[in-house]
Amino acid sequence: MITLYHHPGACSLAAHIILEEIGEPFTASRINLAAGEHQTPEYLAINPHGRVPALTDGDFVLTESPAILSWLGHRFPEAGLLDLADVNRLGRTHELLNFFSSSVHIAFAQLWRAARFADGEAAREEVMASGRRAIAAYFAEIEALVPDGSWLVGGRYSIADPYLLVFYRWGGRIGLDMTAYPGWTAHKQAMLARPAVQRALATEEIEVV
Amino acid sequence: MITLYHHPGACSLAAHIILEEIGEPFTASRINLAAGEHQTPEYLAINPHGRVPALTDGDFVLTESPAILSWLGHRFPEAGLLDLADVNRLGRTHELLNFFSSSVHIAFAQLWRAARFADGEAAREEVMASGRRAIAAYFAEIEALVPDGSWLVGGRYSIADPYLLVFYRWGGRIGLDMTAYPGWTAHKQAMLARPAVQRALATEEIEVV
Repeated sequence: MITLYHHPGACSLAAHIILEEIGEPFTASRINLAAGEHQTPEYLAINPHGRVPALTDGDFVLTESPAILSWLGHRFPEAGLLDLADVNRLGRTHELLNFFSSSVHIAFAQLWRAARFADGEAAREEVMASGRRAIAAYFAEIEALVPDGSWLVGGRYSIADPYLLVFYRWGGRIGLDMTAYPGWTAHKQAMLARPAVQRALATEEIEVV
Repeated sequence: MITLYHHPGACSLAAHIILEEIGEPFTASRINLAAGEHQTPEYLAINPHGRVPALTDGDFVLTESPAILSWLGHRFPEAGLLDLADVNRLGRTHELLNFFSSSVHIAFAQLWRAARFADGEAAREEVMASGRRAIAAYFAEIEALVPDGSWLVGGRYSIADPYLLVFYRWGGRIGLDMTAYPGWTAHKQAMLARPAVQRALATEEIEVV
């Protein structure tokens, strides 16, 4: 039995959505970051970095969102969420996942976890301002990836798409007017129309507006 | 024909080594970052982010080190550099690549590209100091991954291993005593014993000591 360790609305939401899409039984185990549950000895034994998501399948433990999403695509090929027959599309999918994880997500980390980048209050403010500028630039890139709201890779829904819903929600949370991204907003609507997405959001008790 | 766009000693070295291991003909196209060649219109048409590596295969263009390494593993399965038959090892490989790209490499970016994270001089100094502390923590983790110098995934040489050689060299460049990591040093020696590694280093005109 697969267990996904997640926090509501964190990037773990992407893997949560994909697990719902696949339809295999799984356990969604909520890790309350605000209560420090990611720093308990029990959770650090699963993910020494103390971050979500983490996925377990029996003795197998996997961390890092892009790796978990890719593993789900390879583990359940019949779900058709990763085009295993086309090596270039596979590469494109991993390229997007890595861009999301190592660029877009890092910019949000500057804003929300500035202490990872600098100690002093004034320096943290600068790190946050720089993160906000980076987010604006990356969001313009994302809009260009989905100008008409279509799926990210080859016109087919894939493991890469749910990541965009996470960032769309985060954009709203930092006060951006997300309707300024019409293609991305259409992508978001297409995501919200999927029953699997609705189930994951209901379980996490969050909304994307 | 595959072309790899690289800068000597950058993280593109990992893909360069893997291309040498595979043995297919390819072109190594050097992008001189110091001369600003990554910001020319010609290169930005290949990689709008202006970073290395980028790989082209006919009309196909791919960026992001982990995606390029994974693509090479899938594109040339006969080279045996990515265990496609074992989904958990595949997941572990992607997990490591993502950790290297979105954590370890980011810590070096704090040190060498502090302007990406903050504007003012004082804030940049704090970003650099924070990056240096993060590198020390991550390097201890890497040592724990290869305590006896063995390959990273399942005892088999894979697309994940050359990344460690990149970081080993970077550690030396920032003045760390890398012999303090005996397992990793043994891993480095095993890397340097491979003819493909020697060829890539010779082409890039760099050394790893």
